[in-house]
Amino acid sequence: MSPDSLRASREFAAVDRRLLAQRLRRALPADAVLVDDESVRPYECDGLATYRRVPLAVVLPQDEAQVQAVLRICAELGVPVVARGAGTGLSGGAMPHAQGVLMSLARLNRIVRVDPLARIAVVQPGVRNLSISEAAKPHGLYYAPDPSSQIACTIGGNVAENAGGVHCLKYGLTLHNVMRVRALSIDGEVLEFGSEALDSAGLDLLALVIGSEGMLAVVTEVTVRLLPLPQVARCVLASFASVVRAGEAVAGVISAGIIPAGMEMMDKAATAAVEEFVHAGYPLDAEAILLVESDGTPEVVEDEIALIRQVLQAHGAHDIRVSRDEAERLRFWAGRKAAFPAAGRLAADYYCMDGTIPRKRLGEMLESIAAMAQRYGLRCLNVFHAGDGNLHPLILFDAGQPGEQERAEEFGEAILRHSVELGGTVSGEHGVGVEKLGAMCAQFTEAELESFFRVKLAFDGQGLLNPGKAIPTLNRCAEYGKQHVRGDVTTHPGLPRF
Amino acid sequence: MSPDSLRASREFAAVDRRLLAQRLRRALPADAVLVDDESVRPYECDGLATYRRVPLAVVLPQDEAQVQAVLRICAELGVPVVARGAGTGLSGGAMPHAQGVLMSLARLNRIVRVDPLARIAVVQPGVRNLSISEAAKPHGLYYAPDPSSQIACTIGGNVAENAGGVHCLKYGLTLHNVMRVRALSIDGEVLEFGSEALDSAGLDLLALVIGSEGMLAVVTEVTVRLLPLPQVARCVLASFASVVRAGEAVAGVISAGIIPAGMEMMDKAATAAVEEFVHAGYPLDAEAILLVESDGTPEVVEDEIALIRQVLQAHGAHDIRVSRDEAERLRFWAGRKAAFPAAGRLAADYYCMDGTIPRKRLGEMLESIAAMAQRYGLRCLNVFHAGDGNLHPLILFDAGQPGEQERAEEFGEAILRHSVELGGTVSGEHGVGVEKLGAMCAQFTEAELESFFRVKLAFDGQGLLNPGKAIPTLNRCAEYGKQHVRGDVTTHPGLPRF
Repeated sequence: MSPDSLRASREFAAVDRRLLAQRLRRALPADAVLVDDESVRPYECDGLATYRRVPLAVVLPQDEAQVQAVLRICAELGVPVVARGAGTGLSGGAMPHAQGVLMSLARLNRIVRVDPLARIAVVQPGVRNLSISEAAKPHGLYYAPDPSSQIACTIGGNVAENAGGVHCLKYGLTLHNVMRVRALSIDGEVLEFGSEALDSAGLDLLALVIGSEGMLAVVTEVTVRLLPLPQVARCVLASFASVVRAGEAVAGVISAGIIPAGMEMMDKAATAAVEEFVHAGYPLDAEAILLVESDGTPEVVEDEIALIRQVLQAHGAHDIRVSRDEAERLRFWAGRKAAFPAAGRLAADYYCMDGTIPRKRLGEMLESIAAMAQRYGLRCLNVFHAGDGNLHPLILFDAGQPGEQERAEEFGEAILRHSVELGGTVSGEHGVGVEKLGAMCAQFTEAELESFFRVKLAFDGQGLLNPGKAIPTLNRCAEYGKQHVRGDVTTHPGLPRF
Repeated sequence: MSPDSLRASREFAAVDRRLLAQRLRRALPADAVLVDDESVRPYECDGLATYRRVPLAVVLPQDEAQVQAVLRICAELGVPVVARGAGTGLSGGAMPHAQGVLMSLARLNRIVRVDPLARIAVVQPGVRNLSISEAAKPHGLYYAPDPSSQIACTIGGNVAENAGGVHCLKYGLTLHNVMRVRALSIDGEVLEFGSEALDSAGLDLLALVIGSEGMLAVVTEVTVRLLPLPQVARCVLASFASVVRAGEAVAGVISAGIIPAGMEMMDKAATAAVEEFVHAGYPLDAEAILLVESDGTPEVVEDEIALIRQVLQAHGAHDIRVSRDEAERLRFWAGRKAAFPAAGRLAADYYCMDGTIPRKRLGEMLESIAAMAQRYGLRCLNVFHAGDGNLHPLILFDAGQPGEQERAEEFGEAILRHSVELGGTVSGEHGVGVEKLGAMCAQFTEAELESFFRVKLAFDGQGLLNPGKAIPTLNRCAEYGKQHVRGDVTTHPGLPRF
């Protein structure tokens, strides 16, 4: 293994829990330092409950100074630090380190200011995604990225994973909606990335820190861009006789020059599962359905809906429905948003994948997934952010049945490998965390992985920030194939939360 | 000075020119290696002709293999490498290194493919910005970023400087229109950044490499996003009685929820200079004019133009004109595009600044610049990408007059420092290069500058790629104020090209 990946993935010496607690309690209020098993247990996993670890300690700082104090203590003692938002992440990015401190930023939850003229909001990392839009609403503004977990997830976690959502096709990922990030290095140095102006001089460390999964610095303040609330939104629900036709229709809409506010695809298995659960009114005879949303001024929406209808028909859509009012539009979406819990009702466990492929390969990919489902003998519901080629296949399995979890994981790996083969990537909006370490080996060369490690170490020379996440070590990749990369975390799978 | 900035800014041992030439000629065709003074002289500067240096050698590779061979030779001999596109840059980013090789990528000028369905183009770095749109036009598509130099500048240079243009307010900078970059490290390793899918796993090194001014890797292929050509475009020309009112109108348009295709401001001095040069039909009585463009479908443009007119009137615009046809629209823009050459006709020399400030501070900034012009006793024409707060003040001076160049540079520095004070940055779209090294000290803390160096060294451990550019060393910043940062380059200023 090279010195870089070696340094970044070293083992950590056991630190005495009582001693660590003493040091931390001198810097934080008593109720902000948790060390007994019972109180740290709730932090053992994030939304990817398949991966659990009990941290040495949990801290709940309430301002930047306390975050700084904790980081300095950990840097001095050589203790790993894992930052955590609301714990809704789906790739295990916030899974604790057994020898480390789990730092919850939930108490840094202040909206510092909303500036309607500059159309920005300055918020602390523990502010919930939806709270930003609520605070901006009186000014006719909102914050665009909308992960399914937006009621619960925090902007700090969104920044860490570069979170997306149903509307990121038109409005971009977190990266495209954040202007400035204030963070602390592991040594407690204040670093400001980006600015409130359009561009920033020097290297673009803002984009680097967004999606870096807490491995470069700990975010203490975020300036987000706010957009004017669209005057109207309408949603088209279209049925297709095959997933391939539906996939082609998606590419057709985009190449017609339309960027819908959202464009989602569900296959027959997914619509069936959803329908009996929430009764969204989806056609059960369709092999695939598309949800295509248009928002903006009434005139724009009217034109766009007409054009969308044309393109979908040209691609063989039958039974095209357009939401007549807001209630119907929300009902159309209710099905999509309930897809994950609906999957949970069909099987003891399910596994949500998150590959991204070039839009025009969607049909191909869906056929491959169907073939894989046969090969692995597992059911799979397909729910996609189709417009941006982001796949969320839901693999159903029962961890109680010997071998099923392994088969589910191999199935998932196969999907991600194939995403890379089709010119895509192993992650869309959920991050890499611990879940996709193996798949990263399929996507990146040794030289590219080493450059990730070198950049990581440029910020965190001791490799203390969220070690073992996001970047697979080279020997891991070497072993990958022989030994399953997830073998180092042995627990029973659970149901990813939202 | 810290080890990092020290390593990154070290002196280089003189290498024997003949020996270097021998090594290079074994790897490249004879006509691709230039060493005699006469043949390397044309490469002594880029668009910022105030800064000139003769390189040890110039190479003109014609494919990736030749680029790789040159990099490996330079890495082995410890010779600095400065990559160059068309040499239209305005911050000296492509100024050669006296002990180094200047690598022109002009011969890597192939459009690899245009994919209208995926709406992307894959091109080599030496392809001209405008050529991409020309190749995409038959498919009804184009490449959005449009620097003033787009007839000449190359996509490789655009990537290096994260180039913008009149339309980047609506369509974004280079960063927002590039999906994938293939590059070589100084050791000749192939690195792929980003992907043809919306998101990419791992750290966002794509954004890091875009705007890195050739300091991390040498770009050999770029995948750009193509957009559908707008059906129509119309331009509003509005006059204001004061620059402050015009600045407020700009903020007003944006906060009304309109993102114009372009929104430019010129002050009275600029319009006067332009008018007698190109006769664009600008009102000469106005203290400031705004050019506001709307593009899209006829319906959208009509609505947007009506709304823009409303907002401008509400902010005290008089004499609002809307282009009646394409010819008139182009005439409106002709004046703006001729602003730089027009300035060149008014004075022996001029100096174009490139700070960016929060939009709502425009009025304030313009008043400060007027005060500075008094203080430094120099004329200044103000031409802005007002919509995104990107300033291009043109400071007029005569290098022949003792002290005038120094005053012009101090004036420029003062503008950039004030941009930072107003919450902006020292660079909008021209990069830092050698020009803004001093101003960078005003914008970034020691810790932040060190993190830039550490990231640079993570890719280029020997510090061979474009040394001395973009990031000021800490001792430079320490001396900054006492000794002028540009003192190390003593030449006569010329007229920046584009």
